[in-house]
Amino acid sequence: MNYRNVFRQLGLLMLVLSAGMCVIVAIEWFLWSRRGMGELLGVQAMGVSALLGAVVGGGIWMTGRGVKAELMNRREALLLVATSWFIGAMVAALPFWVWATIRSNDNAADAHVFESFVACYFEAMSGLTTTGATVVSDIPGLPKSLLLWRSMTHWLGGLGIVVLFVAVLPMIGVGGKRLFNVEAPGPQQQGVRPRIKETARILWLIYMAITAAAVASYKLAGLSWFESVCHSFSVVSTGGLSTRDASMGAYNSVACDIISMVFMLLAGVNFGLMFLLVRGRWKAVYKDEELRVYLTLKMLVIVLVAANIMGTDIITTAGETVHASAMQALRFAGFQTIALHTGTGFTTADYDLWPFLSRSLLIGLMFIGGCAGSTAGGIKVIRFWIAIKVILASLERAFRPQVVRPLRVSGGIVDDEMKLGALTYCLLILLLVSVGALLIGIFETHTGGFEIDFLTAATASLSTLGNIGPGFNGIGATQNYGWFSTPSLALMSLLMMLGRLEVYAVAVLLLPRFWRGN
Amino acid sequence: MNYRNVFRQLGLLMLVLSAGMCVIVAIEWFLWSRRGMGELLGVQAMGVSALLGAVVGGGIWMTGRGVKAELMNRREALLLVATSWFIGAMVAALPFWVWATIRSNDNAADAHVFESFVACYFEAMSGLTTTGATVVSDIPGLPKSLLLWRSMTHWLGGLGIVVLFVAVLPMIGVGGKRLFNVEAPGPQQQGVRPRIKETARILWLIYMAITAAAVASYKLAGLSWFESVCHSFSVVSTGGLSTRDASMGAYNSVACDIISMVFMLLAGVNFGLMFLLVRGRWKAVYKDEELRVYLTLKMLVIVLVAANIMGTDIITTAGETVHASAMQALRFAGFQTIALHTGTGFTTADYDLWPFLSRSLLIGLMFIGGCAGSTAGGIKVIRFWIAIKVILASLERAFRPQVVRPLRVSGGIVDDEMKLGALTYCLLILLLVSVGALLIGIFETHTGGFEIDFLTAATASLSTLGNIGPGFNGIGATQNYGWFSTPSLALMSLLMMLGRLEVYAVAVLLLPRFWRGN
Repeated sequence: MNYRNVFRQLGLLMLVLSAGMCVIVAIEWFLWSRRGMGELLGVQAMGVSALLGAVVGGGIWMTGRGVKAELMNRREALLLVATSWFIGAMVAALPFWVWATIRSNDNAADAHVFESFVACYFEAMSGLTTTGATVVSDIPGLPKSLLLWRSMTHWLGGLGIVVLFVAVLPMIGVGGKRLFNVEAPGPQQQGVRPRIKETARILWLIYMAITAAAVASYKLAGLSWFESVCHSFSVVSTGGLSTRDASMGAYNSVACDIISMVFMLLAGVNFGLMFLLVRGRWKAVYKDEELRVYLTLKMLVIVLVAANIMGTDIITTAGETVHASAMQALRFAGFQTIALHTGTGFTTADYDLWPFLSRSLLIGLMFIGGCAGSTAGGIKVIRFWIAIKVILASLERAFRPQVVRPLRVSGGIVDDEMKLGALTYCLLILLLVSVGALLIGIFETHTGGFEIDFLTAATASLSTLGNIGPGFNGIGATQNYGWFSTPSLALMSLLMMLGRLEVYAVAVLLLPRFWRGN
Repeated sequence: MNYRNVFRQLGLLMLVLSAGMCVIVAIEWFLWSRRGMGELLGVQAMGVSALLGAVVGGGIWMTGRGVKAELMNRREALLLVATSWFIGAMVAALPFWVWATIRSNDNAADAHVFESFVACYFEAMSGLTTTGATVVSDIPGLPKSLLLWRSMTHWLGGLGIVVLFVAVLPMIGVGGKRLFNVEAPGPQQQGVRPRIKETARILWLIYMAITAAAVASYKLAGLSWFESVCHSFSVVSTGGLSTRDASMGAYNSVACDIISMVFMLLAGVNFGLMFLLVRGRWKAVYKDEELRVYLTLKMLVIVLVAANIMGTDIITTAGETVHASAMQALRFAGFQTIALHTGTGFTTADYDLWPFLSRSLLIGLMFIGGCAGSTAGGIKVIRFWIAIKVILASLERAFRPQVVRPLRVSGGIVDDEMKLGALTYCLLILLLVSVGALLIGIFETHTGGFEIDFLTAATASLSTLGNIGPGFNGIGATQNYGWFSTPSLALMSLLMMLGRLEVYAVAVLLLPRFWRGN
């Protein structure tokens, strides 16, 4: 294993994150005086963190000069990917922690959750993995620079860093194809692999274009530039961190809800398809089975949930009561279904108060997640669909074992290895959600009688592993993760990383065999 | 499809059930006068039901004379198996329903849950599928003949009917091998298939011997003959219906608990292994990987649960408080772990009050279930174990895709088809539990605000599909299923049948393709 090569790339990652912080410092430096002293602390924290990241990252990068980067093999690539998120979250957590530390020295303010580095690490990992879970209970109380940084970690972490790694590393001669296979979420579709470099550039452009469109839309809908940018960063990466405690529900704006729905829906689609669209291959996109299932599933659940909550009083995350006419029911059902299915995790209504059927369907979609090749989390629609097809095919085999019908998806034949892969991944996710819930339950059973309930523990595990954000009960639409103990926050940080990298890239590091040999 | 052939076998099944009732009538007829008028009603109900079963069953059987039974094909066999449980539960439900109907005519007694035929059907299906879920809240209030019948349905339904179908049908020339493949729970191990007829006889003998040993043990532990027989019938078939509301906890006897644990443990083992033991093939049994995993898993969970509840106050199902010393913790943890893992569902302690860790582990074991080839329910240890091995193997493939290591269980190679089969079944069960819970949740959301909680709905679905018996919260150790609405009871009856026949034998009947062709 050529560790120097891996280190060098990690150094580069730190430099990139540091550059992101510098951009924020540059913007905020000219604006803080208008906003009061609280903002200055944030700018200072960002500056210090940027400097730290630049010095350490630059140093590591320099020591690796002269390494033949082309020789990166599969194991090194896996190691780089896993450590990228691990180390990246360390760097991304710095501004939060530095801010809380300066703040607690400066004045006699109340203790802030960010004074715990693990909480900061959780927040940073939630950002970089596009999860959108937060430990902060008074979000507008944070300096604007930190709010912008939270959303920027989404943007960088989402397709951002994926494409960065695919675009930049090949340029410097690192085994880009392998990395792309590892990092791109889900089994790859046709057309993305050839000419990785060119593809990555186009993906970047698509990502930028969608972001720009989102910013313009939110601005037109009445949000400030600052809030438009933050929410665009969050929505394009299916992240979910907001600048408000009530998330998108704070605006109570039909326009904002519709804009968010459109962009969440778009961000949950395989970016490979958008690439095909740009290349003019409409037919392939039209025929894509995963896209059809993704849209059908969504429409079905939206209609069911809307019918289920129609006529009731919907409580928004801002605490208002909205009587659910057909249109209002569709609006709130549509928003929450898309938000949870794509793993964005924005909220407008307290869906925890919705009936059993609605809550069950939402939890089901949280398991499934969006399309492969998107920044959505979960099992991914394509794997779920293959699993359903395998199950249905197994019924016929029970009475006609001699009949062998090839299983097709989007016209292509799914071989046994792909079937096994999809089923294994489904079970792996279910197993990890269970183990995660079990451990969270153990960590949150405190002497004195407090014991977490099953639904909170299970959805905390599911929501972090699936890179979604909110869950149910104790982490519902109007709650946050600030009350979890340190071991739980550390565990959930790991779950977010596992989910984002589709488990394998992280889990292989635990195998002794991985470290043996050369 | 040769329907007459299938009908004829169904007629035979009715005759067998009718014969079982006759045995009870014969015994009880001489005892009822000592026990008071309440018993007479039970005997009358049994007699009427036996007569009905004999007439209808005999009639059907006669009409099928002259059918060439040897020609039963795979589809007919599947149809017979599925309809057997469906029709069998109809017949087995008769005594309950007839009794409640006579009773309500005879005097001005309170309404009884058995006045609903669906509730009776649920109870009978619970018996025949060896589930052990009950709708009755005052169990000792039932006539003894009905109590005996409940346990006898377990005994007949458990390995009883499996072996009956395997032993009797081949004798009259029906495709026994196919039936055996369909009915024997789980993927078959070596040594069971050849010479089905002889094997079935030996299995019968083993089953009888275990039953006799159980009866003698309970009797020696101080139970009456009646209670010894009833509980033996329940324990040997991993059923779980008891003669007491507090189940085994009513006796608060260490001896009874240990006896139950031993026989539950034994009943959860693959009967094919016992067959090998009888044949003197100790080595094959010793090497059996499923048995090892089954025992290891159990020991592990028992130790964890015991450690978890040690020092707390255990509330028994009889309402007593027992301070959990190390020995008491082991006793109650051992009993509930074995009872829920094997799907027996006897209870001694209100495990609903146990800490998060214990409850989680118990739910996990409920999913897994006992060994293939036993009367236990769930996914089965062997499938769970294959799934775990496939998942672990997939980790190595992530960084060494070129290395292909054959996956072995008990020394034999597991091919791709077996892997796919095991994984598919695991996912199928998880999917069915979810769909079942969703439907139960919908059925139990009543106007007026009552809404079932997730844990009750999920464990009701799991417990019936896994042929376990009790669940958590609303169907916990001290609760019963009597409060469910009729649609839920009907659904859960279906789930019990699906779980008992490992889904496929029932589910294929829903495919249009199954009914086409000849």
